[in-house]
Amino acid sequence: MKIIKRPLPETWSSLCKRATINENSLQETVASILKEVKQNKDTALKKYTQLFDGVALDAIEVSEEELKEAESLVASELKSAIQLAKKNIETFHTSQKETAKKVTTTNGVTCWRKSVAIEKVGLYIPGGSAPLFSTILMLGIPAKIAGCKEIVLCTPTNKEGKINPAILYTASLVGVTKIFKVGGAQAIGAMAYGTETIPQVYKILGPGNQYVTKAKELVQQQGVAIDMPAGPSEVLVIADETSNPEFVAADLLSQAEHGADSQAVLVTTSNEVAENIVTELNQQLDKLPRKELAKKAIENSFAVVLSSKEACIDFSNSYAPEHLIIASEQAYKYIDGIINAGSVFLGNYSCESAGDYASGTNHTLPTNGYAKSYSGVSLDSFVKKITFQEVTQEGIENIGEAIELMAEAEGLQAHKNAITVRLKEIRNV
Amino acid sequence: MKIIKRPLPETWSSLCKRATINENSLQETVASILKEVKQNKDTALKKYTQLFDGVALDAIEVSEEELKEAESLVASELKSAIQLAKKNIETFHTSQKETAKKVTTTNGVTCWRKSVAIEKVGLYIPGGSAPLFSTILMLGIPAKIAGCKEIVLCTPTNKEGKINPAILYTASLVGVTKIFKVGGAQAIGAMAYGTETIPQVYKILGPGNQYVTKAKELVQQQGVAIDMPAGPSEVLVIADETSNPEFVAADLLSQAEHGADSQAVLVTTSNEVAENIVTELNQQLDKLPRKELAKKAIENSFAVVLSSKEACIDFSNSYAPEHLIIASEQAYKYIDGIINAGSVFLGNYSCESAGDYASGTNHTLPTNGYAKSYSGVSLDSFVKKITFQEVTQEGIENIGEAIELMAEAEGLQAHKNAITVRLKEIRNV
Repeated sequence: MKIIKRPLPETWSSLCKRATINENSLQETVASILKEVKQNKDTALKKYTQLFDGVALDAIEVSEEELKEAESLVASELKSAIQLAKKNIETFHTSQKETAKKVTTTNGVTCWRKSVAIEKVGLYIPGGSAPLFSTILMLGIPAKIAGCKEIVLCTPTNKEGKINPAILYTASLVGVTKIFKVGGAQAIGAMAYGTETIPQVYKILGPGNQYVTKAKELVQQQGVAIDMPAGPSEVLVIADETSNPEFVAADLLSQAEHGADSQAVLVTTSNEVAENIVTELNQQLDKLPRKELAKKAIENSFAVVLSSKEACIDFSNSYAPEHLIIASEQAYKYIDGIINAGSVFLGNYSCESAGDYASGTNHTLPTNGYAKSYSGVSLDSFVKKITFQEVTQEGIENIGEAIELMAEAEGLQAHKNAITVRLKEIRNV
Repeated sequence: MKIIKRPLPETWSSLCKRATINENSLQETVASILKEVKQNKDTALKKYTQLFDGVALDAIEVSEEELKEAESLVASELKSAIQLAKKNIETFHTSQKETAKKVTTTNGVTCWRKSVAIEKVGLYIPGGSAPLFSTILMLGIPAKIAGCKEIVLCTPTNKEGKINPAILYTASLVGVTKIFKVGGAQAIGAMAYGTETIPQVYKILGPGNQYVTKAKELVQQQGVAIDMPAGPSEVLVIADETSNPEFVAADLLSQAEHGADSQAVLVTTSNEVAENIVTELNQQLDKLPRKELAKKAIENSFAVVLSSKEACIDFSNSYAPEHLIIASEQAYKYIDGIINAGSVFLGNYSCESAGDYASGTNHTLPTNGYAKSYSGVSLDSFVKKITFQEVTQEGIENIGEAIELMAEAEGLQAHKNAITVRLKEIRNV
């Protein structure tokens, strides 16, 4: 990991730039998959599953039997661990519930917002080497708390047409209503348009490879909501003399093992701290099973030494990290300065792993600098906040004339008239 | 307005379908405008302003003098009206503030969310016949309450290079930081990329024509957040025997005058109610200054007579209207059934005009059925909710082993290790 000492402020924006993906050919491929799924539905799903995953599907939906079998296959210790994580995630996301707060803005005018669940949501869980059951907790639990009626999950199978038991177990546990053995862009198309087997949903959430990401982007343009734009995962650690180099190195590496395109950034005011951490990181790196992947990510990462604590925070805000770890015994002093970040981990024992699995916060977070404008997934992601208003006769008398004036000034005579007919009736003119 | 009596449920989805716009050529045009703005910045803005608006701009930014002049040109009654609306909108949006609520999910594990303003936001206000200063209230007020530091506003000028004084007055009043005389796709590009004069922003909000809408969609794909996808405005009114036909007709027309592509839908259980309202509507229509526009919208609209109150609510949920008016003395009885709607107006005196201008709710709302998954603009639209977590030694002892198990089961050894090094240190191993 290279250490960049005292970079000039004008070089920060290039340091904060993420790698870009060339995606011109991707768009066409994905658009044609989506088009075919829209037309040929289940037939197209089976075709692409054969083509891309090498699996001839009999049934697209996971059966009750498969769910039962999965439950018996998951070790009881892992089940307990998943249940502990579930409890914490439930506690935190339940605390995000809002009760309708009625506000009288003027006598006779009452306004409020009511959170109403999105009726049908689709969760996408990638296949591949790591069975990401933790992401099912992060998406399924708030969906259930929100009250979504239909919670559909799509995930690809292995070559034998099987889904990892921990995925099936977790999906059942959190209350997913239907699970389908479909992955890739075709799964996104299926949930966006609906097929004979897979219900159409109004919002699609969850991570995926570049095909899945592009498919989500394209269906979003067709009116299906998505959680947020996606990019490679990343962490920024601000460390000082009170941090523990072994811990920080482990945290940087836990980010790096996600993939070669992951980025781990270290920011500190001390050359010594930076050097100690990098030394420790190199030692730990060698022992990792996924070290080839992590090595590439680390090559793509860097440490920056800056002149002050304030500069560290400024740099972090410019970078707008998905995960921000404040590895310091004085972590609290940094809170007020944090403007752009997805999720923040305070102090030497708050490691990213904790938030990835079990602290209770959500791990579906804005990457790629999107933390400047996007929030991570929360209960909010599964509801619409509908506004209500009740205006009484008194209310119309109090605000009616102002509305008439404004409508007229905007040239909207019928808007004005909607007030005028009411004022006339009230005043018995 | 045609009355459709007892349509079969299987025909509902086609009734609920909005008109689609052919937009293939649009994409290319807008993409090339955006590209040029990105490259040539202010020069491109001046070129397109000359080309599309027929105005040769000296200065792109509105000057202090122009703002002062505008203030003197707005009638004091209109100023008072705007101030009254501002107060109500402020009251309601201030009530949406959230205070960080710390939650202990497990002993030693504390999580919370903190709302932090999006630093830089861009507001787009269309030009054309109606000077939509009310939309400035709806976007500028929550931006200010949220604490956005840079609130940029772009709006096109008239042929004389002037902006309507009410727009300038309202923008100053709510605390917009900079106002620019640029409209169309080029304005969206300017705020997305930044120019010599116009600052780059992280989120763009506001209505516009199809060029503006397409430009917002394209910059969203490049990472700039937008408020929501757009479509023509619409209202659905559920009326019963206790509604006032004159009021309902006025409300349907106030929607219709927005544009030929607006839609006004009436839903009721009574043939008589439908017929009375349509008769009243035809009478009022003839007196409107914008009647040609409204007539077209009404041709494009319809009334449906259904068999029960429940069916009316079901139909409304299928349609997912931007505005839902419950024109009934028993409006409260409908609330629990409402699943999909942008903003709801309860009772005979709660007209859409009230919400459009001054009740306090926001009038930037999801159209085109997007109310199934999107909320309208609120204070939430101007903040990110950053999650924080603090895990102590006790916390790691309580959740550490569960995390180790889960990380291992997901094949993420470095995630596990971040816990292991901490558990070892705590246990002095």
